[in-house]
Amino acid sequence: MNPERRARVALSRLVEPGTASVLAAVQESGAVATWARLREGRRLPGMSAALAEGAAHRAGSCDPDADLRALERCGGRVVCPGDDEWPTDRLIWPGDAVRSAPPVVLYARGPLGLADATARSVAVVGARAATAYGSHVATELGMGLAEAGTTVVSGGAYGIDGAAHVGALRAEGAPTVAVLACGVDVAYPRGHDRLLARIAATGLVLSEVPPGCAPMRSRFLVRNRLIAALSQGTVVVEAALRSGSLSTAARAEELSRPVMAVPGPVTSAASAGCHELLRAGALCVTGARQVLEHVGSSGEDLCETPRGRADPRDHLSAVVRQVLEAVPVRRGAGEASIARTAGVATLVVQQVLPPLVVAGLVERTDGGYRLTALGMARPAAAG
Amino acid sequence: MNPERRARVALSRLVEPGTASVLAAVQESGAVATWARLREGRRLPGMSAALAEGAAHRAGSCDPDADLRALERCGGRVVCPGDDEWPTDRLIWPGDAVRSAPPVVLYARGPLGLADATARSVAVVGARAATAYGSHVATELGMGLAEAGTTVVSGGAYGIDGAAHVGALRAEGAPTVAVLACGVDVAYPRGHDRLLARIAATGLVLSEVPPGCAPMRSRFLVRNRLIAALSQGTVVVEAALRSGSLSTAARAEELSRPVMAVPGPVTSAASAGCHELLRAGALCVTGARQVLEHVGSSGEDLCETPRGRADPRDHLSAVVRQVLEAVPVRRGAGEASIARTAGVATLVVQQVLPPLVVAGLVERTDGGYRLTALGMARPAAAG
Repeated sequence: MNPERRARVALSRLVEPGTASVLAAVQESGAVATWARLREGRRLPGMSAALAEGAAHRAGSCDPDADLRALERCGGRVVCPGDDEWPTDRLIWPGDAVRSAPPVVLYARGPLGLADATARSVAVVGARAATAYGSHVATELGMGLAEAGTTVVSGGAYGIDGAAHVGALRAEGAPTVAVLACGVDVAYPRGHDRLLARIAATGLVLSEVPPGCAPMRSRFLVRNRLIAALSQGTVVVEAALRSGSLSTAARAEELSRPVMAVPGPVTSAASAGCHELLRAGALCVTGARQVLEHVGSSGEDLCETPRGRADPRDHLSAVVRQVLEAVPVRRGAGEASIARTAGVATLVVQQVLPPLVVAGLVERTDGGYRLTALGMARPAAAG
Repeated sequence: MNPERRARVALSRLVEPGTASVLAAVQESGAVATWARLREGRRLPGMSAALAEGAAHRAGSCDPDADLRALERCGGRVVCPGDDEWPTDRLIWPGDAVRSAPPVVLYARGPLGLADATARSVAVVGARAATAYGSHVATELGMGLAEAGTTVVSGGAYGIDGAAHVGALRAEGAPTVAVLACGVDVAYPRGHDRLLARIAATGLVLSEVPPGCAPMRSRFLVRNRLIAALSQGTVVVEAALRSGSLSTAARAEELSRPVMAVPGPVTSAASAGCHELLRAGALCVTGARQVLEHVGSSGEDLCETPRGRADPRDHLSAVVRQVLEAVPVRRGAGEASIARTAGVATLVVQQVLPPLVVAGLVERTDGGYRLTALGMARPAAAG
């Protein structure tokens, strides 16, 4: 293997993902030189003595070739900046946009190139302790997005993450990508062993930490920025007030990607975090089409407003509709003429028209009454 | 009775509520002159021939004294502009702000003055075909608002309206006001006979149409502007896509009053209208305190963000918290010093600190590591 790639693998053993000083040094002097420097216990520019000391300590037991063999055993590969499948646009952000730097290296399992798989992609995340409602919505959302050719990116966890992956797999329209906080060969959570295998068989299982690494709690927070970064937008389906998935939303916000939340019953603690997001300005989405509307780059994803919203005609009685149907579109007509057309008494027309004017369906012109744009919006006969 | 007041009562028989030309004529030449003019079949400025003809026709059978006697029988009264209880600020709006003009006269039943009753007031409206969820939330909301001394204004209908009134009555903290599309002496809907009587006994039952008038369908739309106008803000609890309560929200929007919506399950058609409102920019509210935050004129109603939102410390393991607690607030400390304070090995501190920096809880200074504002936000010991 190319020494630079091998050195990036080594670096992922020496420091936790997202360490800015390491990425900067690699970009400045290359991974081989950076690795050598850390191995010798020297500090990188901007790096703390503590971090350098820790890295030097870890360097003693670091064996990138062993990591590469483990990766090969699980069918995985190394993905580096400059590779065809490295999604450059997604994985560049200014140092102060997000608290943690972009990855130095990624580990991937799965048949698809990462850049292709995430060209159209949405993160669907949420609580581990999901309700039946949340799981249902996440599955539907995953399925709807995949059917529309959009990759579902999530964290492979129990609850919402898993339901979103399952929905996407069910649709078979687009791959799904699981970004883990542990090595790509680690089945975590244990009960998602088969799910992760299915994702690796058709989509991608991704991580920043080397094979065999355990999912340290702090790694979840750093991992969440990657889920947000690889996606055009992030949807939170269900989240309690302290749910970790809210940090994914925060990272998406920092990256200027749309943050969306699915509402739920206000009586459900599992939706309280979503409602807080909505109160803080997140976009309210109730299904895949509305999600696509917010992330879609082309007109094809523009979502129609659900039909029939607030149509005042729905509240009209039969006789009022009868009169409304008799009101002309262009040149105004007098009430006697409208009464003849409608087949009702003139007095009825005289009683009915004023409220229709008030409701904005009919307007008065010099020549009499005619329909407004609102009154014309749908053929009155269909009302 | 003062002839002007009596003439306003007569005018409410001749034309439907909200007719701009009548209000303008009354303001210009008084109600007596306007009534006389309509009785003689003459058009008011800006009035259509049809409307004038209809009014003249109705004038024949108009008997304001009979209406006043009917009003007296049900314990009601006439409320006119200039009366102490007329809520002037609420009932003035520019002619083009809302499709329909402010009222010429109001009919009221109940012990409280209208202006006092609506000084602090919120409209809580929604679908007749409410679900158990919606009814529960509306009752809780009505109760919470009334307990906080805020009047609940609604339409007295089945479903959300009725539940909101019931909740407010239960709290006994502030009155509730039912604004009807029929006469204040008409028990509509029939099944709310006793509810309306209870509202009239402690709060107010209000209408723009004279006693005995039936709730014509078109009158609901015109009535809805009055519900919105009498309230500092409007909350829609549950509404299908075509619910009439969405028109109340539209009128509130036109009057520049806050429009709020309660989310619900996205799988519930009864919440679809609320979600559309949220998508169109309505404020997401999950309870009375959040409603008060949006309509409150003083700091006392400012709502705390639910505690513990997205606190990154909630995801930290015990040992990481131990290290975090040892990180100083002001002057930075080295990792060896932190390790001593925390009572853990220096190597542990070296592994733990970088992710804490990434998570934004700790920052590096020249003197070593110290807590960030976020890290200090809550005593680490309580984490």
